[in-house]
Amino acid sequence: MTAYTIIPGPNSTGLAHGLGRELNAAVLEVYRKVFPDGEQYVRIGIENIVKNSRYLLVASMYPNQDRSFVEVLLLANALKNNDVDDIIGIITYIAYSRQDKMFLPGEPISIEAILKSLYSVGVKDLITIDMHSPRSLEFFPGKSINILISDLLVSHALKYLETPIVLAPDKGALGRARFAAEKHGLEFDYLVKHRDRITGEITMEPKELSVRGRDVVIVDDIISTGGTIALATGMCLRNGARRVIVAASHSLLVGGAVDKIRSAGALKIVTANTIPVGSSDFIEVVDISGRIAEVLREAF
Amino acid sequence: MTAYTIIPGPNSTGLAHGLGRELNAAVLEVYRKVFPDGEQYVRIGIENIVKNSRYLLVASMYPNQDRSFVEVLLLANALKNNDVDDIIGIITYIAYSRQDKMFLPGEPISIEAILKSLYSVGVKDLITIDMHSPRSLEFFPGKSINILISDLLVSHALKYLETPIVLAPDKGALGRARFAAEKHGLEFDYLVKHRDRITGEITMEPKELSVRGRDVVIVDDIISTGGTIALATGMCLRNGARRVIVAASHSLLVGGAVDKIRSAGALKIVTANTIPVGSSDFIEVVDISGRIAEVLREAF
Repeated sequence: MTAYTIIPGPNSTGLAHGLGRELNAAVLEVYRKVFPDGEQYVRIGIENIVKNSRYLLVASMYPNQDRSFVEVLLLANALKNNDVDDIIGIITYIAYSRQDKMFLPGEPISIEAILKSLYSVGVKDLITIDMHSPRSLEFFPGKSINILISDLLVSHALKYLETPIVLAPDKGALGRARFAAEKHGLEFDYLVKHRDRITGEITMEPKELSVRGRDVVIVDDIISTGGTIALATGMCLRNGARRVIVAASHSLLVGGAVDKIRSAGALKIVTANTIPVGSSDFIEVVDISGRIAEVLREAF
Repeated sequence: MTAYTIIPGPNSTGLAHGLGRELNAAVLEVYRKVFPDGEQYVRIGIENIVKNSRYLLVASMYPNQDRSFVEVLLLANALKNNDVDDIIGIITYIAYSRQDKMFLPGEPISIEAILKSLYSVGVKDLITIDMHSPRSLEFFPGKSINILISDLLVSHALKYLETPIVLAPDKGALGRARFAAEKHGLEFDYLVKHRDRITGEITMEPKELSVRGRDVVIVDDIISTGGTIALATGMCLRNGARRVIVAASHSLLVGGAVDKIRSAGALKIVTANTIPVGSSDFIEVVDISGRIAEVLREAF
């Protein structure tokens, strides 16, 4: 059986230890400080390094995207310079994944720059969770795996709902709704946005299904300011849905996102620990370390 | 004659335009914004791109090292994705250059991670100013040039001083003191630190020369908190030096650095615009765009 050693990178202490328990793996210490000029310093406590194991660099790039990204580069470099050659990056949330193409001339494909840099410092394999656009992983020169978790989130939502419809907020997000729905034998659809030509009012409705009298789970990858999700929630309820739960993999929850979604009438947000988020009555955080361990054991 | 096009990266607007004038080069617009979650967005105004020119990505990684570094990666990627293949990075101050070896097991060689990442996104040639340890540039896989400017700084100091001794604050920094001294026909030396075994008091004295009755220029690469420079200044004056000017390439000037150096009795700080610094009665900022243009024309 493969032995694993875990290096807990930025924003990932909880998940790293969860994964340590799942894999029966040592979790190394990481010492951090910030110099007076703002530069980061890291050191990995390599006294406890396990020879002949696979090294898992666990990290999340939110909050503090740029700082977290640089910390990952430094940790990968530290491993390489301390004789660890096969680093598996488990980066649960990869920042800049929404700038995945040039929308306008002169723009970067930011995610390409991030993925190329990670590879250049020695991250040879990459595992991530519910990438905004899984095709972006083609920019990573090494082996990569995108783990879908919408089925796990929906399975938690099912504690509160009765045979809900699984809805994606737009056509591009349909894949993760379909994945969850098919696992649980539920109906799924995506929301279509209409803008009234006269009033400018925006309405959203499922392409095919009716939400009237039904429970709904809205499945998405990222909640940032929560605007779209709140709008979708409100629309479902106005169209007669009984209860709406929001299931999103990565909860950035910027500004008043939580209040916005609660005010729109959602029963709960179900999310994952790809980013450190606190649980509450309204937010249920699903631990995904078991799922990551499963995929790891199959793939490596 | 080579045509150049300049892309003004982080912390470099002034220098980029100075270089534009020196090289008679177009300076493109860079549009920047920050998303609500903190991610950066950049776009290069490529309408004015000059075909068949060399592209100079001008940047400084202070202040905001991590954010500036990511901006450089994004700009380089934007160039590459907009059909610019030969990017020359002119990065006047490269952050993380002081972590240039493993001082303790488990540490990264941070500068290696930074340089490898820059190369991976398409920076194929790199010009920098007075690198903390020029040998670090060996980590950069492309062509690289380290431009010394201590002679320029000392030449400005000579407006205020009479045949000064050029002093390095320690043996490791002697190279840049020697370079400046030899250009101007001055004596040079480095300071040796003594710690009194009984009182713990630290004293510093030149290895060979005496500062008594002499003017002094202390030449260094980086002023961060200014502690060492202030100590060296005070010691020279206590040992009978007439006047002391501090000449440093990169002025981070963290916290109370300026006050510390002024209180120690220095006449002036002479520094360069490798980092945006404001001039004042006490701080003289030397424009180095002419020197960079000279080196560029010779090398590319």
